[in-house]
Amino acid sequence: MKDGLQMGKQSLSFEKPVYIMSSACIAGPKEGEGPLKDYFDEVVEDATLGKDSWEEGESELMKQTIALAIRKAKIKTEDVRYLFAGDLLGQLIATTFGVINFQIPLFGLYGACSTMGEGLSLGAMTIHGGYADYVVAAASSHFGSAEKQFRFPLEYGNQRPMSSTWTVTGSGAFVLSKDEGDIMITGITTGKVVDYGVKDSANMGACMAPAAADVIYQHLKDFERKPEDYDKIVTGDLGCVGQEILLKLLKDQGYDITNVHMDCGMEIYDDPEQDTHAGGSGCGCSAVTLAGKLMHDFKSGKLKRILFVPTGALMSTVSYNEGQSVPGIAHAVVIETKQ
Amino acid sequence: MKDGLQMGKQSLSFEKPVYIMSSACIAGPKEGEGPLKDYFDEVVEDATLGKDSWEEGESELMKQTIALAIRKAKIKTEDVRYLFAGDLLGQLIATTFGVINFQIPLFGLYGACSTMGEGLSLGAMTIHGGYADYVVAAASSHFGSAEKQFRFPLEYGNQRPMSSTWTVTGSGAFVLSKDEGDIMITGITTGKVVDYGVKDSANMGACMAPAAADVIYQHLKDFERKPEDYDKIVTGDLGCVGQEILLKLLKDQGYDITNVHMDCGMEIYDDPEQDTHAGGSGCGCSAVTLAGKLMHDFKSGKLKRILFVPTGALMSTVSYNEGQSVPGIAHAVVIETKQ
Repeated sequence: MKDGLQMGKQSLSFEKPVYIMSSACIAGPKEGEGPLKDYFDEVVEDATLGKDSWEEGESELMKQTIALAIRKAKIKTEDVRYLFAGDLLGQLIATTFGVINFQIPLFGLYGACSTMGEGLSLGAMTIHGGYADYVVAAASSHFGSAEKQFRFPLEYGNQRPMSSTWTVTGSGAFVLSKDEGDIMITGITTGKVVDYGVKDSANMGACMAPAAADVIYQHLKDFERKPEDYDKIVTGDLGCVGQEILLKLLKDQGYDITNVHMDCGMEIYDDPEQDTHAGGSGCGCSAVTLAGKLMHDFKSGKLKRILFVPTGALMSTVSYNEGQSVPGIAHAVVIETKQ
Repeated sequence: MKDGLQMGKQSLSFEKPVYIMSSACIAGPKEGEGPLKDYFDEVVEDATLGKDSWEEGESELMKQTIALAIRKAKIKTEDVRYLFAGDLLGQLIATTFGVINFQIPLFGLYGACSTMGEGLSLGAMTIHGGYADYVVAAASSHFGSAEKQFRFPLEYGNQRPMSSTWTVTGSGAFVLSKDEGDIMITGITTGKVVDYGVKDSANMGACMAPAAADVIYQHLKDFERKPEDYDKIVTGDLGCVGQEILLKLLKDQGYDITNVHMDCGMEIYDDPEQDTHAGGSGCGCSAVTLAGKLMHDFKSGKLKRILFVPTGALMSTVSYNEGQSVPGIAHAVVIETKQ
């Protein structure tokens, strides 16, 4: 049903577009020294935001980012009907303690680093369905809390392989609405769990690339589009290792996205100077890049249409230590301006 | 807008009801010895389901339950457009490895033990919005994997306070559709994070009761209904300690639900014989009780309308060890048969 609401097996095309009323992004100190620093709404100097732990700091980061997005949309907190939010921490504690004061009905999401795409997708479906006038989609990640949970204590100062990525300290939030604006979400393609059997948790790019390739391929099929129909196809945090695999996988399927591909993880840090190795990662990586740099490029007319494809690596220390592979998932969102 | 789609601040009333085409529940050995044993589709004798770990066992449990729900709905796996699923484990590993083989687009959810309500809510919104013909909502929990993650190694044989609950080993899955059936979802009320500052992770009932009271109160206000308008108001896993608090809180707000309240956690085990103390808990507790006993009572005509309110305690060992409180969240779903 090409012109209908449902397209193909995995895609929706919104008859009435959903508008992005505002976006907000607050990033950490290291991100504030990177190439995207001028596009962040705020850069915090203290990664704990004055709290007692990395986790409380991440919650404060999401709290301030959501509050800023609501202010920029010129609406009241009570105008927001639903909150779609998630983070990387076990049981979403960054989100729980970050959103508690807003007292907005919450749909807690876990899509690993694809969560920003999952939230924008469900948020857009909710607005388009007439279930709400305003919703907020938000995601966060934090280097300190993520390293502590997934890898080693920071004090241990472990070496990091060149394939590893650096978890972005940052949060992005978006207010979605049916009120007409300049930037809109016109479609989504929802990803499946894809597992190529990669077991290296220090090579997330390789774990996630097959899921990104799968959802991008399905999107182009469902919408009957070519890569050139997009100014950019933006993956979340594949890094340079994952990018190579993604481009190869899609070429094998007949799509060459080389000229339009951009990976947020490869944009956010200045390597090798910032020594992050393969690039940035985390829910916050794609969230702050979209809310900052990409939204800016839409407003300045540099971008007309992108496919935003945050990528998630689905694993925990438990599944990893039990010898499980690290499957991936990715969710694609079509964002464009009126031509 | 009483007759509209949106009702009050937190509720939706579906103009066209969403139908529950099928439900499936598979429970563990201990649950299979409890009062609800005759209502489960299957009871597994081996809690690892022949796998190498509790986590892989839980994944297998969810996998078999979803497959059974799809079979009972007499549809094909490829007819299911979206999967809304979650569990209690860090980064949803039970769900990730449980759903991987279905290759259905996945929205991963985390609402702690309220996840079955979150999944049914988003699933119903998705069907009502015309985004899909069929979706599956599923949730699971597992005593072994939950104790290992949240409490102590089973081998340690720690003592459990009388206020503690026993995580249910079980999974429930539901196929939702616009195809007309006998049992339907006619409305939802989405919960907020509610924190009364309780810090006792061995007293989840006290942590979750305020969130349950909050969403039930808001639901009755939004729908302009009285407790007696429901045959049962069914909370997920408050246990006997949480129930007492819930009834008190709602009485203070002018609603006496004593005569219609039922808590899945107090139904699923035979205490004190089964020695589970305050009752059962976990995403699986409300999921298998709804998919088993309650669906049976709808079919037999015993039930006409219930308010299903799974309750979640939002915490992780990290937030707990950092001295954070344990906030709660609960999501309410109106399930009824045609009068």
